Amino acid sequence: MTTSTNDSQIPLGRYIFERIRQVGVKTIFGVPGDFNLSLLDHIYDVEGLRWAGNANELNAGYSADGYSRINGLSCLVTTFGVGDLSAVNAIAGMMAEHVGCLHIVGTPSLSSISNRLLLHHTLGNGRFDIFEDMSKHITEKATSIEDIEHAQAIVDDLIVTAFTLKRPVYLGLPSNFVNELVDASRLEKKLDLELPLNEKEAELEIVENIYAKIQEAKNPIVLVDACASRHDVKHLVAVFAETTQFPVFTTPMGKSSFDEDNPRYGGVYVGVLSNPDVKEAVESADLILSVGGLLSDFNTGSFTYNYHTTNVIEFHSDFCKVRAATYSNVKMQYVLEKLDEKIKKGTSNYVPGPLPASVHDYKQVVNVKSGKLTQDYLWKKLSYFLKSGDVIVTETGTSSFGVIQTHFPSKVTAISQVLWGSIGYSLPSAVGAQFALEEIDPNRRCILFIGDGSLQLTVQAISDVCRWNLKPYLFVLNNKGYTIEKLIHGEHAQYNMIQTWDHSKILELFHDKVEYENHRVSTVEELNTLFEDKAFNKNDKVRLIELMLDEMDAPANLVKQAKISEKINSS
Amino acid sequence: MTTSTNDSQIPLGRYIFERIRQVGVKTIFGVPGDFNLSLLDHIYDVEGLRWAGNANELNAGYSADGYSRINGLSCLVTTFGVGDLSAVNAIAGMMAEHVGCLHIVGTPSLSSISNRLLLHHTLGNGRFDIFEDMSKHITEKATSIEDIEHAQAIVDDLIVTAFTLKRPVYLGLPSNFVNELVDASRLEKKLDLELPLNEKEAELEIVENIYAKIQEAKNPIVLVDACASRHDVKHLVAVFAETTQFPVFTTPMGKSSFDEDNPRYGGVYVGVLSNPDVKEAVESADLILSVGGLLSDFNTGSFTYNYHTTNVIEFHSDFCKVRAATYSNVKMQYVLEKLDEKIKKGTSNYVPGPLPASVHDYKQVVNVKSGKLTQDYLWKKLSYFLKSGDVIVTETGTSSFGVIQTHFPSKVTAISQVLWGSIGYSLPSAVGAQFALEEIDPNRRCILFIGDGSLQLTVQAISDVCRWNLKPYLFVLNNKGYTIEKLIHGEHAQYNMIQTWDHSKILELFHDKVEYENHRVSTVEELNTLFEDKAFNKNDKVRLIELMLDEMDAPANLVKQAKISEKINSS
Repeated sequence: MTTSTNDSQIPLGRYIFERIRQVGVKTIFGVPGDFNLSLLDHIYDVEGLRWAGNANELNAGYSADGYSRINGLSCLVTTFGVGDLSAVNAIAGMMAEHVGCLHIVGTPSLSSISNRLLLHHTLGNGRFDIFEDMSKHITEKATSIEDIEHAQAIVDDLIVTAFTLKRPVYLGLPSNFVNELVDASRLEKKLDLELPLNEKEAELEIVENIYAKIQEAKNPIVLVDACASRHDVKHLVAVFAETTQFPVFTTPMGKSSFDEDNPRYGGVYVGVLSNPDVKEAVESADLILSVGGLLSDFNTGSFTYNYHTTNVIEFHSDFCKVRAATYSNVKMQYVLEKLDEKIKKGTSNYVPGPLPASVHDYKQVVNVKSGKLTQDYLWKKLSYFLKSGDVIVTETGTSSFGVIQTHFPSKVTAISQVLWGSIGYSLPSAVGAQFALEEIDPNRRCILFIGDGSLQLTVQAISDVCRWNLKPYLFVLNNKGYTIEKLIHGEHAQYNMIQTWDHSKILELFHDKVEYENHRVSTVEELNTLFEDKAFNKNDKVRLIELMLDEMDAPANLVKQAKISEKINSS
Repeated sequence: MTTSTNDSQIPLGRYIFERIRQVGVKTIFGVPGDFNLSLLDHIYDVEGLRWAGNANELNAGYSADGYSRINGLSCLVTTFGVGDLSAVNAIAGMMAEHVGCLHIVGTPSLSSISNRLLLHHTLGNGRFDIFEDMSKHITEKATSIEDIEHAQAIVDDLIVTAFTLKRPVYLGLPSNFVNELVDASRLEKKLDLELPLNEKEAELEIVENIYAKIQEAKNPIVLVDACASRHDVKHLVAVFAETTQFPVFTTPMGKSSFDEDNPRYGGVYVGVLSNPDVKEAVESADLILSVGGLLSDFNTGSFTYNYHTTNVIEFHSDFCKVRAATYSNVKMQYVLEKLDEKIKKGTSNYVPGPLPASVHDYKQVVNVKSGKLTQDYLWKKLSYFLKSGDVIVTETGTSSFGVIQTHFPSKVTAISQVLWGSIGYSLPSAVGAQFALEEIDPNRRCILFIGDGSLQLTVQAISDVCRWNLKPYLFVLNNKGYTIEKLIHGEHAQYNMIQTWDHSKILELFHDKVEYENHRVSTVEELNTLFEDKAFNKNDKVRLIELMLDEMDAPANLVKQAKISEKINSS
């Protein structure tokens, strides 16, 4: 904190950014606009903060999402109307997928609002509350500053809400308040970011209840999903697996929430799309401990889970459920801790059995030495390119389905928007993640896989990469259009075609003196050579790698998913 | 219409597109997504319809806006959640600026909705009505199909609403209804697109009232604003000016709503930002006939109109106002007709006076022969490059302010988003306009002016240009960032800087075998040479012309506007 305690008063704009910095945010994403310019001045009052200056608001929002998934919180600044509406898709994605973000919208001054001026960036009807009303639908909380007296409390409350609940919040900030003075000493008391404790008796009851079920179970498993990462209980799951020795499976969204090198890791469960031995192992379990479940269609093989729900215990960030009994407001974070303590004190008759053999399937690829590059080879071979600490970002499409086949080394973090599924998301999200990695440990690599169709939606995020000389790996799957959609409906339809681009020209356009590398890979040999090249393995410049793939080549699980999706859509 | 009257039933999807085609739409904008794919199949059932296939939804929305401003209506198709939220900024812009558009959103099937499935593209909370609720705020009407019986009536009503009121409407279309059969014979009765007549007595009263005021006036003027174009009364204004010989002025948004070669054209009125002789002429008038006014800040020199409102008669699409008396639901379209008839029958003592001399200011440039290219020279010289039938699209920034200084030949159409003012709008909007021009008359040229900062937001719209081999002129003002914002606040601030791009590489990236031309212009000589080059004047390929301008060079009216804006924002 750069505020001297002698400065008894500071501008509200500075107060906001000091608070944001206190909770670990170092990069502010967004686009300037005349209703937020005076706010942006205060970013540079705070040591260690920077303004990313994204090329557009949707990209800024997606980058805030990716940054938050690595960093725990992010901050996005846009301008009134045109700015916040351009970002709503990104905000809704954060809401759906439990990602914390403070979205600050610079709005017209209070006097403009009360005089109902027909300002630009309005609908011309004198209403200034419409955009906040729209945001209420897709945020945990949306509030505007209406007087300086309550401003600090509102800011603090919104930051705590976004951080602890891992959801986006909206702060409307009329431009006239930015430079009004507020009490600086409030900054000396750090925000309380601890989750409120559970109600004691309810917690005791559920722990006893779960413990009893565990004691009875012959064949229990743990199923880890997205919210284990989002709500930061990965370490608790790891401890729990160590204590109990239960087999651990993940969902597609849960991938990277559990160490795949752990000997108790059993693979990815996706209903009927699972490997048969994984399906058998999960569905024959007599107790399923489901942690952080987000059971959407693409995460469950379109709801083809085939286990007895009576065998399931659900752990969530805001409730837990044992068979049919819901424990409202009982948070998994504390329950998992208490449960582990209790198990450690008790005794167990559990005898660990063998795990599905398919978890080692990726090892098949070592025998393939040549031929045209295929999706199947790519995703399995990738297991050998990845290393501890990597962040791998995949796009909704062949990438997000393909990466399920990839084995992740320890401490790999996966980012994919499986539930919200907005195409184009992955590129700016990877850029946001790369900003966070640069702040945490520049040696950690950020590796993106995106299709040529999705790339077109958000390509200018690569301009942000060059602006900051970031060094991600950008793998572009060139398969001539929207392959995931061709699989669902309209294989030869014109609407699933795209304009072809010369991908080798992208970095030429944006780079402006930044060092970069282009690669094109069409064969197994070329991929092997590249992945084994030491220089290529070092993330010392931005690289764009175009992967030439057949138009209809797709991971087998996506082919099956697409067939189910079309059926659901037409019924 | 390709439907044979023997086919007694057709799929609802086809019905929708037949209706859309009937009202003059030939291009459908949008992005495919799995909830709209089966709908898109039906585009090709209808002769003369095409699917643009835009690179992203915001661009698709902006293109629908530009297309509609030329064509009178447009149609946009997106997919549920991720698609419609990406487009809301464009929809809100159409709402603010009176642009008609049918926005069709492909949504999950009714059975998915009633089972509250946790589908992708939802917030994971089982609510499917959120996005329609959000759209209600920014559309004239938002409706979803809930049963096949009412589907045709809903579609018809939405199209008529969008067309007659010139506003966007939202149609939610659950995927299961797309192929359900509806009565084809309904297509034989064309939609009634006529505006409902005014209530007769109210209309008579207001016409008498205005006529009396006109008879008394010594020094009347006409002030034409945006809605004269949006609601298609340009021809009535022209007739009225001819009949009365009153001087006619336009606002910035009204520019191109009146023929600037007409001897009764007096110039652009923008409050204190006007040329002094224009300001004097308008503000000394004893009667102001204001047609289609949209009096927003950037359209009025920040509300610095300085005339007696008691002298004003307002003509609007949904009401008229004579001094303090409002006539609700009395539409200007009919009032102007009746008023003209009445005046033609009467007598007049009006003696036309001289017009402001500044209307000929652009002629100054003919004396400038050399030197660095400046904004002042550019906008005036442009008067000589433009020709009848051109569509000129300008971006919120130096372009939209600069073009006020340009003299438009007859039948030039200007597009600029002065009220909503979303940066990045102009490029995809120009692309949409170009689609419409290609359908109406390929010899008419579409000429875009956009700054290097704004270009970055929506650059992939140029991919759409190449996909369709469209031939617009893309003038890119290279002035190193957001000049309009630097003028308002933060001239040297990092947040007003952008990543510099190599603009000559843009067409190389997207073109894929389409013929194109790059130009760079830094001096007066180079601009003169280019504008006088016959080959360049012919729109036979896409051209990108980079204009090298000083960072802080800006039209004088923008410099003044920026100072006022900063004051309003901070007060």
